[in-house]
Amino acid sequence: METQPLNFEVIARDGNARAGILTTARAVIETPVFMPVGTAGTVKGIRFEELESRDLDAQIILGNTYHLWLRPGIETIKAGGGLHKFIGWERALLTDSGGFQVWSLGKLRKITEAGTEFRSHIDGALCFLSPEISMEVQAALGAEIAMAFDECAPGEATPEEARASMELTLRWAKRSREAFDRIAQVANLRSGHTEATAQVNNLRYQQALFGIVQGASYLDLRRESLERTVEIGFAGYAIGGLSVGEEKPVMLEVIEEIAPRLPPEKPRYLMGVGTPQDLIEAVARGVDMFDCVLPTRNGRTGQAFTARGKLNVKNARYAQDQRPLDELCGCSVCRRHSRAFLRHLYLSGEMLASILLTHHNLAFFLDTMRRVRQAIRSGQFTKFHREYTEQMNSGLE
Amino acid sequence: METQPLNFEVIARDGNARAGILTTARAVIETPVFMPVGTAGTVKGIRFEELESRDLDAQIILGNTYHLWLRPGIETIKAGGGLHKFIGWERALLTDSGGFQVWSLGKLRKITEAGTEFRSHIDGALCFLSPEISMEVQAALGAEIAMAFDECAPGEATPEEARASMELTLRWAKRSREAFDRIAQVANLRSGHTEATAQVNNLRYQQALFGIVQGASYLDLRRESLERTVEIGFAGYAIGGLSVGEEKPVMLEVIEEIAPRLPPEKPRYLMGVGTPQDLIEAVARGVDMFDCVLPTRNGRTGQAFTARGKLNVKNARYAQDQRPLDELCGCSVCRRHSRAFLRHLYLSGEMLASILLTHHNLAFFLDTMRRVRQAIRSGQFTKFHREYTEQMNSGLE
Repeated sequence: METQPLNFEVIARDGNARAGILTTARAVIETPVFMPVGTAGTVKGIRFEELESRDLDAQIILGNTYHLWLRPGIETIKAGGGLHKFIGWERALLTDSGGFQVWSLGKLRKITEAGTEFRSHIDGALCFLSPEISMEVQAALGAEIAMAFDECAPGEATPEEARASMELTLRWAKRSREAFDRIAQVANLRSGHTEATAQVNNLRYQQALFGIVQGASYLDLRRESLERTVEIGFAGYAIGGLSVGEEKPVMLEVIEEIAPRLPPEKPRYLMGVGTPQDLIEAVARGVDMFDCVLPTRNGRTGQAFTARGKLNVKNARYAQDQRPLDELCGCSVCRRHSRAFLRHLYLSGEMLASILLTHHNLAFFLDTMRRVRQAIRSGQFTKFHREYTEQMNSGLE
Repeated sequence: METQPLNFEVIARDGNARAGILTTARAVIETPVFMPVGTAGTVKGIRFEELESRDLDAQIILGNTYHLWLRPGIETIKAGGGLHKFIGWERALLTDSGGFQVWSLGKLRKITEAGTEFRSHIDGALCFLSPEISMEVQAALGAEIAMAFDECAPGEATPEEARASMELTLRWAKRSREAFDRIAQVANLRSGHTEATAQVNNLRYQQALFGIVQGASYLDLRRESLERTVEIGFAGYAIGGLSVGEEKPVMLEVIEEIAPRLPPEKPRYLMGVGTPQDLIEAVARGVDMFDCVLPTRNGRTGQAFTARGKLNVKNARYAQDQRPLDELCGCSVCRRHSRAFLRHLYLSGEMLASILLTHHNLAFFLDTMRRVRQAIRSGQFTKFHREYTEQMNSGLE
């Protein structure tokens, strides 16, 4: 059975920036798109109804294979009918492979050719993750987009370390591809005859696999990684291993070198990046998809993103400030609540501070991407880019 | 200027149970009513939009004078235009007097004839609260309903202690009444000529004051407190000092003795009580208004109220339970999420667990009261009371 799990079409270009439509079985996703991060099956601090609301209207969110595999565990998610059904989210999902999370454990993990041995951050139990296991777990989670199992080089890696890491990632990419295809084949055979049975079977055959380009900050390694990853062949390509300690100009240089060289007919995903400005810089260099914990994490620590830069609600200057977080924002938080009230909530340790700041920050990120798409489609992206940056740098009053 | 800050009308009776309409400048409140507790200007873990939603539709919430006075402080709330505007809530508010909160501080407070000296739980600063100060603070907060400043006797108080406490509460009730009237008079004089100026002035003249009946578990003291409180004259009457350590039958006996003896044309408010069953028992004895932290507090500790009793989501038996918290509940949480998912969120320490459990619990309490009102109006309260209790005692599957 030949099905197209994912369709992507570029509908407008403005310089290297592209606007496109990414279609999955569950959602029509306009790109460039920002994907809120739902690590443990929840985008922290926000209800799914709010993610679906007009303020945010997120069409796709992330799930973390590492976290969900350890807790609640695959058996529980399978019993719940896959990740969508378990968490109650009918729109699209992307799951990472667990590679980056395990890598982030640092001393708690040991990387071998076979895969990565590590200790669970929950109970210290010894675990093992490999390309094959990651594909099995991601198939059970049933996201529309799964990621190849990769290894990441640190920001300060030597050329030798970076090459070794890149070569391992390439071997793992091949194993990921093969494991994914075997799983898809079995799933298709099992569920093959009717659409209905395929759906029960966690939509396996509707899953698409993305490859990940690594190579640290070495452009020659990055280019080689790109070519050899594309050779293996994936439904989309990610740029991994950025925003891991390198300087910002280095990050932009890698993106500028790699993004435009990726196959133009496939979606391009920059993993784990970044601030609203980073997003726009990456869009200008040809990236289509983003995820980042900044809007949610900063929301929980009292930081709001605004059109004029970051606002720290703890600041005493906001004690009696009756203005909304962002005077240019139309989200439900900015329509209703003052900086003074949000500061009070934050200083009182009230959960509502996190809830409201998370909502505003996600609204801000998602609205920025809406405006980016509109600018590309109307051929105004360069102007938008300049004005957005100027306003961002103008500072808060 | 003579204005009616509060209007109350009993529209149906069924035994001692009554259904009524409480009208304030901002809300039409059907009674019996449950008022969610918004201690520090937020009902913990829930957005105001959700309080207003069809699931909950809370017409009135509480604010705590003690907490708001200490943080953010009256100057900040005044600068924000009063409590309604500061927090962004246009429906009705009731503020307690701070008496109970200060009393709860235990060793941190010293009670004299003049008032109560205590140390702030935030920074240890020495503070002093009296009937006069409480009335000033509550006037600035600007809730539709303010409470007299009272003193509470502990559950195990001797008759002598209980009498002394009751007598002090009566003297403070008189002082509260006088201070309130002076403030209202000044406010009326100041703002007197137009409705508009009165509104700017924090709606002071639209505020109503409730008295509080004390007397621990001594019925003779309770009756005396009732008579002498009614003599002073208030817009409504509360039963205070219950649910502070006494046995449940004692609590119900006091309610049964006092509620029906309160002036029939005024609203009756049972402070700080209780479980859904407690609410219904008190309604059966003639109470109109309730507040309690149980739905919000228990929500944060993983306990859900259901038609068949309390459900602890931490319980391992729910690990793969695909049913909603309460199969009879139609709230947005029960329509969307399983026990298994909520358990996972709770065990993962995710904020969304508190958010969703709080929502369900408030929906459950508010829906119970909706059904109570309907039952009274249709003369079916006795039947409802019996069936509700039977179902509650039938236990969870």
